[in-house]
Amino acid sequence: MVILGIDPGLAITGYGLVEEKDGGFVRLASGCIRTTRDKESPMRLEEIFNSVDVLISQYRPAAMAVEQLFFCKNVRTALQVGEARGTVILAAAKNKLALFEYTPLQVKQAVAGYGAAGKSQVQKMVQMLLRLPECPAVDDEADALAVALCHLQHRRYHEAIGGSSKK
Amino acid sequence: MVILGIDPGLAITGYGLVEEKDGGFVRLASGCIRTTRDKESPMRLEEIFNSVDVLISQYRPAAMAVEQLFFCKNVRTALQVGEARGTVILAAAKNKLALFEYTPLQVKQAVAGYGAAGKSQVQKMVQMLLRLPECPAVDDEADALAVALCHLQHRRYHEAIGGSSKK
Repeated sequence: MVILGIDPGLAITGYGLVEEKDGGFVRLASGCIRTTRDKESPMRLEEIFNSVDVLISQYRPAAMAVEQLFFCKNVRTALQVGEARGTVILAAAKNKLALFEYTPLQVKQAVAGYGAAGKSQVQKMVQMLLRLPECPAVDDEADALAVALCHLQHRRYHEAIGGSSKK
Repeated sequence: MVILGIDPGLAITGYGLVEEKDGGFVRLASGCIRTTRDKESPMRLEEIFNSVDVLISQYRPAAMAVEQLFFCKNVRTALQVGEARGTVILAAAKNKLALFEYTPLQVKQAVAGYGAAGKSQVQKMVQMLLRLPECPAVDDEADALAVALCHLQHRRYHEAIGGSSKK
């Protein structure tokens, strides 16, 4: 099962494709979709949509996982993050991909084992769980891999107790 | 020239199609795209995208106009409004429609003549300028018509002074 984790943002959208295989986790691909300020926002959002759309066609993930946000630096940032989120969620909907949202606390607990884990601890655990030669260079890429791992861990847990992982 | 004004929101997205004709303004269509809470957000955003897409195919507007927001009740609301905005802006981009954004102050000034105008004054002016038999029943519909009118007024002004209305 392949999961597409996304950390949406107008300037940088992190993505991570993780597969559960033989009881472990494998990174199929990860990186950042970057859009530049010299373009207007409709074009930037379209670039994000098209890039996510291509990733879905290419890797055929079973679901998309994103972080559920409740806070932001300010309302302006929240509106901008929301626009990127809406675009990414629409790419999931258009491809009939189930969407799963997890709070930052759930992601930290699933990946690092406890909710108070710092950014670098989460990154280290992402590296360990995926047996990567080095930490992902960009936070957004690491966060996207983390939320994909979070979904796979939740799924595993819910399958073990016989429930559903659908939130 | 037909302009599509949009007031985006997850539950209610207001829209208004206004044409400038013989020196006056005509409402071609207006209303609300409503999505219900019993559906998950990807499906709701897809409904908004598809509805805006249909409006664009049907009326072939020359541009889309939306309000530029800087404040919201809270960050959670801002994220949600942002998601709806992103979806609507993407519909513009996918249809190669130019997007124009105006601040609430600009909309009030253009429609009611002064920036401190209240909601009901703006609605009355929208009704008058479009010669509607009655005020639009829903705020979001009135706001969408207002931002479309704002764009047409700005265009007129910029054409009069020989400049461009592109923001």
